[in-house]
Amino acid sequence: MTKIHPIDVILHKRDGLELRDEEIQAFIRAIVEWTPRQQLVTDAQIASLLMAIFLQGLNRRELATLTSAMRFSGETFDAAPLKTFTIDKHSTGGVGDKTSLLVAPILAAAGLAHPNEEGIPGICVPMISGRSLGHTGGTLDKLETIPGFNSQLDLKQLAETLRICGAALIGQTPRIVPADRILYALRDHTGTVESPFLITASIMSKKLAESLNALVLDVKVGCGAFMPTYEKSRQLAELMVSTGEAAGTRTVALLTSMEEPLGRFSGNWVEVWECVDIMQGKRHPMSADLIELSLALAGWMLHLAGQASSPQQGAQLADQILNSGDAYQAWLKIIAAQGGDISVFEDPAAHHKPAARRTLNATQAGYLSSMDCRLAGWAVQRLGAGRAKPGDAVSAHAGIESHVKLGSRIEEGQPLFTLFSEDPLKLDQPEQMLRDTLRITPQPPSIPPIVREVVSATPTGNLLTPEIP
Amino acid sequence: MTKIHPIDVILHKRDGLELRDEEIQAFIRAIVEWTPRQQLVTDAQIASLLMAIFLQGLNRRELATLTSAMRFSGETFDAAPLKTFTIDKHSTGGVGDKTSLLVAPILAAAGLAHPNEEGIPGICVPMISGRSLGHTGGTLDKLETIPGFNSQLDLKQLAETLRICGAALIGQTPRIVPADRILYALRDHTGTVESPFLITASIMSKKLAESLNALVLDVKVGCGAFMPTYEKSRQLAELMVSTGEAAGTRTVALLTSMEEPLGRFSGNWVEVWECVDIMQGKRHPMSADLIELSLALAGWMLHLAGQASSPQQGAQLADQILNSGDAYQAWLKIIAAQGGDISVFEDPAAHHKPAARRTLNATQAGYLSSMDCRLAGWAVQRLGAGRAKPGDAVSAHAGIESHVKLGSRIEEGQPLFTLFSEDPLKLDQPEQMLRDTLRITPQPPSIPPIVREVVSATPTGNLLTPEIP
Repeated sequence: MTKIHPIDVILHKRDGLELRDEEIQAFIRAIVEWTPRQQLVTDAQIASLLMAIFLQGLNRRELATLTSAMRFSGETFDAAPLKTFTIDKHSTGGVGDKTSLLVAPILAAAGLAHPNEEGIPGICVPMISGRSLGHTGGTLDKLETIPGFNSQLDLKQLAETLRICGAALIGQTPRIVPADRILYALRDHTGTVESPFLITASIMSKKLAESLNALVLDVKVGCGAFMPTYEKSRQLAELMVSTGEAAGTRTVALLTSMEEPLGRFSGNWVEVWECVDIMQGKRHPMSADLIELSLALAGWMLHLAGQASSPQQGAQLADQILNSGDAYQAWLKIIAAQGGDISVFEDPAAHHKPAARRTLNATQAGYLSSMDCRLAGWAVQRLGAGRAKPGDAVSAHAGIESHVKLGSRIEEGQPLFTLFSEDPLKLDQPEQMLRDTLRITPQPPSIPPIVREVVSATPTGNLLTPEIP
Repeated sequence: MTKIHPIDVILHKRDGLELRDEEIQAFIRAIVEWTPRQQLVTDAQIASLLMAIFLQGLNRRELATLTSAMRFSGETFDAAPLKTFTIDKHSTGGVGDKTSLLVAPILAAAGLAHPNEEGIPGICVPMISGRSLGHTGGTLDKLETIPGFNSQLDLKQLAETLRICGAALIGQTPRIVPADRILYALRDHTGTVESPFLITASIMSKKLAESLNALVLDVKVGCGAFMPTYEKSRQLAELMVSTGEAAGTRTVALLTSMEEPLGRFSGNWVEVWECVDIMQGKRHPMSADLIELSLALAGWMLHLAGQASSPQQGAQLADQILNSGDAYQAWLKIIAAQGGDISVFEDPAAHHKPAARRTLNATQAGYLSSMDCRLAGWAVQRLGAGRAKPGDAVSAHAGIESHVKLGSRIEEGQPLFTLFSEDPLKLDQPEQMLRDTLRITPQPPSIPPIVREVVSATPTGNLLTPEIP
């Protein structure tokens, strides 16, 4: 094979040609094999290719090849020795989006209830999560408010935790998908973040490195979503589904509404608290949307894992697992296995210790008809719960509690939100931001369902969007 | 004014928006004001913007602003104290393209014949030239075969030489248009060389930094041209003309044929020799196309400088200046002023000392109907006369002599080319390359005229392509 030069790959994509598999593979190899002594490709060349991909796009084969090359750019998890069904979920990010904290224990409980002949859970969830950024929260930041909890497991520890618990909740290891770390750092400052092709390759390379039999994607739509329009969210969902299927992972995407913070709380510890309450059987009315979405996601996962004949039956099964306390037992097992102090779950409200709190009351009567959910997410970040840029510290106890939901009837003086912060000086700006997010009208609004659409693949590989389940 | 961040400029161009003048100016400023302590913009960001410009293009205002920002990114020549009419020519590069060596002395002679009231030539040619690269030759490499010749004048020495000689033939100074040096080095390895917008900004920023009243562009078309099609050459010509006019420099572009090496010789010293012969009144039949093109270019320049009522009359005047020996006298003055040993012009053939030569004879009879002129240029490069990459050394005495032209009747065994090299081992490959360039047919071909089209601007600024002069 003749040597492939990075410049030729750039020229071909620039000129709208289809890249050959070998070209994509050689470029990704050059990125990760770069050393100061062997400069195979420059940052400028990578940035140039990223912009060419941004503007010229990738077809499904190119995208599958890019994702695969990134997936195998470092170490990958090998689930084969466990002889289990591996499955995960991934969300494109939202406000108050804590479904992972419910879905992982539900699936783990189902797996623990059906061990294989070696006693290993028949379903395992090797969940590698991320951190808060911008207006969206991060599962790891939430979990790390649990005293002693260790998210930094290596792949051997990951396998061991799965073998015992059926799920593990860990952070990105430095050696998984190193190509994505390099590409993402460049995309972030060269204006190439918002490409559905590059987003798909980034997300799917990391998820596929978990060695998954199936994957359920929660792609947010609405004013709190990362993608700016419904159509762009839908395109992203289709690209991720086709890329997952091309890699042999059964992949389904749910387009779900992110028009307001999900559930009762948005923050870090407060979100763990909310989930623990639910798993303990205390279902607060403000958690209804969170529970509905978590059951829909878990339902699809149980269906794909062969535990239910339809996603609807899967959701019913998930509800039983939650109600029975099995999900809570699995949760305690997972957290304890990762070093967490489970005694804090005995009274999660008592563990919430913000230095300052303030309640925002309604100044007019009417119906809550819309919110700027993205701005609400930034308010949560400004309270201290999120980070503006990678590496910033986050506060465990900052956040908000929602007392109303879209469509709620509101009376003047009624509490709308309670704000929590570890710094009393950090309340004023978020309060004003939250107030600015609200639109109150005399007539009740029409509210979209939480699951808007499901993107799946037919057996022939063509994309299909079935009716809402 | 709010601070402009490089990332926002990238995002705007990526999304197809029109860049504001301040955005373009801030980006170029960040490029040249970058220091290791103050990293205003990264190479990756520059590459990303270059690719976005490559694919999204620039409108005329954006292009004029980019060119102007680059032009003023470093020092510029100030011709005002000379109170003269400044004019230059620029070629997009060809094989055997040595018109500068004839045009500059012709214009200088015209300027010397019409001094202003302070005794300074009424026309001055502050010609900043480049070096050979790839299949094209470079004026500086040719001039530097003259013993003692110094092309590295600073701007003060440039003004002094113009004051005495009416022309100066110098190389790029390190402080003129530093933005172009940075951008070009990046474009070269990030696949963003062939953009007509970026080519225009690169060429025109350097030419406009010479403080020109007028500029005549020689834009090559045909198989030896840099641009791959006639239409792309024409687009480049139009962009350069509109950019020059926007900067207040009267600009005209001639689209000229580059289907075979221009004139008798292609190389370095051999091209000086050919021009000296012509200026001494010895017009070799193989130099006819070179003389025709040089007179057309000089004719337009004399017309724009107000010395002729039309480009056609300008060409006649140029012919007289050449015939009278005035151009030769101006040439000797310029070369001597720049330290060159003019005694070598007494017998230029004797100064040609290649270590090896070989003549390529025809193996069949017919008409020379076409040539791969680009490949012929690479053959000249491989003989040692050119460079594959910037910084390579070039040979003074390597090159080729053409014994036939397109349309020539050829008999079997007739000499077609003589190859010269300083290394006998370097003859075989170029000989084969040259042989491969030729197509000999039984019927004579139709040959395009040397000047194919003229691109000019109407007084209202609209582009106009008048009849061929």
